[in-house]
Amino acid sequence: MQNQVAFSGADRGNWRVESLRAVRGDPLPAVPCLDVAPASSSENQASRLWVLRGFASNVRYAKRVEVTSLKAQSEPLGRRLAMKAALIPIRKTPAWWALAQDERRAIFEEQSHHTAIGMDYLPAIARQLYHAKDLGEPFDFLTWFEFAPEHEAAFEGLVARLRATQEWTYVDREIDIRLVRS
Amino acid sequence: MQNQVAFSGADRGNWRVESLRAVRGDPLPAVPCLDVAPASSSENQASRLWVLRGFASNVRYAKRVEVTSLKAQSEPLGRRLAMKAALIPIRKTPAWWALAQDERRAIFEEQSHHTAIGMDYLPAIARQLYHAKDLGEPFDFLTWFEFAPEHEAAFEGLVARLRATQEWTYVDREIDIRLVRS
Repeated sequence: MQNQVAFSGADRGNWRVESLRAVRGDPLPAVPCLDVAPASSSENQASRLWVLRGFASNVRYAKRVEVTSLKAQSEPLGRRLAMKAALIPIRKTPAWWALAQDERRAIFEEQSHHTAIGMDYLPAIARQLYHAKDLGEPFDFLTWFEFAPEHEAAFEGLVARLRATQEWTYVDREIDIRLVRS
Repeated sequence: MQNQVAFSGADRGNWRVESLRAVRGDPLPAVPCLDVAPASSSENQASRLWVLRGFASNVRYAKRVEVTSLKAQSEPLGRRLAMKAALIPIRKTPAWWALAQDERRAIFEEQSHHTAIGMDYLPAIARQLYHAKDLGEPFDFLTWFEFAPEHEAAFEGLVARLRATQEWTYVDREIDIRLVRS
């Protein structure tokens, strides 16, 4: 599928794993490298220990004013200076998915300020969300962040603030994988 | 993938095609039957002329009050009396997908009354939405309806009302396939 990205835990890959820890729920096996590539490419499959797949999609919660602000402040993935990255796969509880759209929006933004928190770290921390739940994957979201080494402390602040939100009480599995470009 | 459904245009299948017409955009080849099955099953592949895949997912626009009302009034698929069905694959324009969540919601419900129109035909017309865009499919949605033969005129009213909405100005491909149980 052309719009799917595969994150492969493997012996080789375009990112080297600095750390991999389970924040909540079942862990994921340790790997030396992470290879990030379109899911259609079949390279390197033999050496994969695991693979997580997801797709970028339209925004699900952001209002026009938020989308406009995000676009104005965001920088793309793949910046030369962004030598560090993080892959944080997340699964939410069945209770989250049983909520109606207005209930999820209220928790996501009005209570938890998810978009507003992320904006505080733009353009330093570039981010991309990949959806995985609808593929029957073990995680619901694969969240991806890229930043320069001098913004690592800021990134710790970002994830700490998100993990302290009301929204995060609906997260029942989370892995935190820190990466440096190979 | 366990949550994917495949709609296969084929020589045999659990539904017989009564009519197949392009409402807007490119047509789809005529077929004698439609086979509806989990996408993981590999039966009957040889005789397929085409296959459309989609997945059921969480609600994207409905508020709590609407979800509660829908659940109270809806009946399940597969009712004995529901000998008729319709598969209506739909694609929306890039302009639709570039809208923010609040803009899409406003067009979908406050302007077009999509959920409210559907509710007028419950429980007679049972419906299920399958998402396809994020699979890289040719359509964005596969909309599925089941009803007893005596509600066919009501169903015509339902689709006519939806096609007259502001939301439908964002539909650039639509096929209308009418079916009867084999």
